[in-house]
Amino acid sequence: MAAEESVVVSNDFPLNNHKQNSVVSASTNDPNAISSVIPGWFSEISPMWPGEAHSLKVEKILFQGKSEYQNVMVFQSSTYGKVLVLDGVIQLTERDECAYQEMITHLPLCSIPNPKKVLVIGGGDGGVLREVARHSSVEKIDICEIDKMVVDVSKQFFPDVAVGYEDKRVTLHVGDGVAFLKAVPEGTYDAVIVDSSDPIGPAKELFEKPFFESVARALRPGGVVCTQAESIWLHMHIIEDIVENCRQIFKGSVNYAWTTVPTYPSGMIGFMVCSTEGPAVDFKHPVNPIDVNDSQHSARPLKFYNSELHTAAFCLPSFAKKAIGSKAN
Amino acid sequence: MAAEESVVVSNDFPLNNHKQNSVVSASTNDPNAISSVIPGWFSEISPMWPGEAHSLKVEKILFQGKSEYQNVMVFQSSTYGKVLVLDGVIQLTERDECAYQEMITHLPLCSIPNPKKVLVIGGGDGGVLREVARHSSVEKIDICEIDKMVVDVSKQFFPDVAVGYEDKRVTLHVGDGVAFLKAVPEGTYDAVIVDSSDPIGPAKELFEKPFFESVARALRPGGVVCTQAESIWLHMHIIEDIVENCRQIFKGSVNYAWTTVPTYPSGMIGFMVCSTEGPAVDFKHPVNPIDVNDSQHSARPLKFYNSELHTAAFCLPSFAKKAIGSKAN
Repeated sequence: MAAEESVVVSNDFPLNNHKQNSVVSASTNDPNAISSVIPGWFSEISPMWPGEAHSLKVEKILFQGKSEYQNVMVFQSSTYGKVLVLDGVIQLTERDECAYQEMITHLPLCSIPNPKKVLVIGGGDGGVLREVARHSSVEKIDICEIDKMVVDVSKQFFPDVAVGYEDKRVTLHVGDGVAFLKAVPEGTYDAVIVDSSDPIGPAKELFEKPFFESVARALRPGGVVCTQAESIWLHMHIIEDIVENCRQIFKGSVNYAWTTVPTYPSGMIGFMVCSTEGPAVDFKHPVNPIDVNDSQHSARPLKFYNSELHTAAFCLPSFAKKAIGSKAN
Repeated sequence: MAAEESVVVSNDFPLNNHKQNSVVSASTNDPNAISSVIPGWFSEISPMWPGEAHSLKVEKILFQGKSEYQNVMVFQSSTYGKVLVLDGVIQLTERDECAYQEMITHLPLCSIPNPKKVLVIGGGDGGVLREVARHSSVEKIDICEIDKMVVDVSKQFFPDVAVGYEDKRVTLHVGDGVAFLKAVPEGTYDAVIVDSSDPIGPAKELFEKPFFESVARALRPGGVVCTQAESIWLHMHIIEDIVENCRQIFKGSVNYAWTTVPTYPSGMIGFMVCSTEGPAVDFKHPVNPIDVNDSQHSARPLKFYNSELHTAAFCLPSFAKKAIGSKAN
C-alpha cells in the first residue's frame, strides 16, 4: 500500500473524492490499495479477500507511521478496543486478540511434554510471548521480529499484549526471521511459532519452502512448529500449497487447525501444526494441558484456550477435509 | 428499517449525500437505519453489532420488495454468489449457506435414532428442508414460515436452496410460528428446528420463554430442538437469557454449539440444542450419523457437516464456557 493512500478519518464526514476513489480502486484489485475508508470507519479491503470488507468504527487515530517495511497504524475503535493495523490489514484488536494468541501458542506447546526452548518468528506485538510465558517448563524464549516499529508501538499502545516482553526468559532479536533461522544451530528449539502477517508484503517468504526447511532444521527431533495459515473459506489454494510443502519437510506429522477470530477476514484463521521426525507428537490429544494449572502461573487467566477446544480445532468442515485431508491430518 | 432508507447502488459511484447520511445515522444507533452502503457495496450495519460492519461488493440488484413483515432484497455479489437480505441483514449467501443449513439441521437430527416427524419454524428459503430431506427415516416435514415473499423469492433466485420444497414429505404452512405451535397436538414431533432471523423484527417472539414452552409441548418425550442462538462474541447477554429460559423448560439436556459462517456478524453463529424429558439424548456423540451413508440418499453431497465437526461444535472458548457453561452443557 502506498503511504499516501492510507486514509482514515475520525468522526467528521466530509465528502472527499479521494477517499471515495480509494475505496473504488481497492475494490478493483489495485494491489497498491489495500486500505481505505468510509467516513468515520476503517475498512479492510484487500486483493487477498476480494469483494468483501470488514469495517470498524473509528473513535480516534492514535498512531500512524511508516517503517522501513510497512505502514503502521493504531486506532481506538468504538467497540473492539484499540486496533493494530499493518499495511491496511488488522493484526489485532484488544477485544478478540486472545483467540489468536492463545491458540497459535498453546496448540504446539501443549502438545509436547516440557517445552524448554521456544522461538517466535514475527509476533512483534508480544502477545505470543505472553502466552509462551505461561509455560513454567520454558527456559528460553527467542523472538525475531523484522520491524522494530511494531514492537515499540505495541509497548506504547497495547500494554496487555506487549507485557510478554517483560518476562525475563525473553530475548528480542530485531531482524529478518529467514536469516535468523539460518544461523541457528541445528536442533536448537523444542517449538517454533510463526506469527506472520499475510503472504503479501514482508511476510511473503514465511510461506515458502526454504523457510519451512530452515524451521525443520532449527527444531530438535520431535519438535513442533505452528504457523499462521490463512482461512479455509478464502485461501484454500494457498493452504493446499503450504500443506504440500510441509508434507515434504515435516516427517513427524502435518495437521491443520483453525479458530474463530471475528476481526480476521471470514471470521476465522487457520494454523499449520507440524512435527519433525523423532518422538511422535499426537497434536489432537494435548499431553501438556495448560488450563489445568494455569492459575498457578499467571495473574491473567486464559480467556479462550482450553484442552477441549484444542482437540476440536483439528476438526475440519467436509469441504476443507476433502481438499487438504489427504495431505494432512 | 424504513423502506426508503434501504439504499443499494450497483457499479456506479455518485457522491450522494443521502447515502453518506444513511451510513452516519446507522452508526449512531438509529434503530430505523440498519442497512446502508458504501458506493457499489452492500454494508450490514445494525445496533445488534454496533461499531462494525461487513460489506459485500454488489454486481447487480436482482430483487427489492417490501412484504407485510420486512424488506426483502436479493443481490448478485462479486465473490459470494447471490445474497438474500431481510431488513438489511444478510440471511444467506450461496457461497457459505452450507455451513448454517447443515449444522442447524444435522446437530439435532443426527443426535436421535430414526427421526420421523420434523417441524421447521422460519427457514423460508428452504435450505433446512433440503438438509432434513437427507434423512431417510423422516416421514413428515412441516414448515411454518411467516413471510410468503421469502419463500417465493427463494424459489426464484436460490434454486439450490429452495430445492428443499420439492421433497414430497414437505408441507408448507404460511403463518405465525407461535400460533402454529400452539395448535399442534402435544408430543407430535421428534425434532423442531427454529431457523429464525435476529430477535428484532418478526422473529422477536422466537427468543422468548412462551415460545420455548410451546416447542417443548409439541415435542415427544426425548424430542430435540435446535434454534439459531446468535454469537458468543457479540451477544452473550442474549445467549445467557436464552440458556436460562431453556434450562427451565427443557428437562432433558441443554447445550450450546457454534459454527463458522463468514457472512454472519463476527464470522460465526451459535445454536441452542436441547431435549425434552424422556429417553436421554447425548448431543455430543451423534447416534445417527448422516455422513456415513449420505451418498446413498442425496445427489448433493454434504459440503460442511461431518460427525467429528458435530462433536467439536459443542466445545466452547473459555470465556463462553464460563458465562454459559454452568447453565448449559
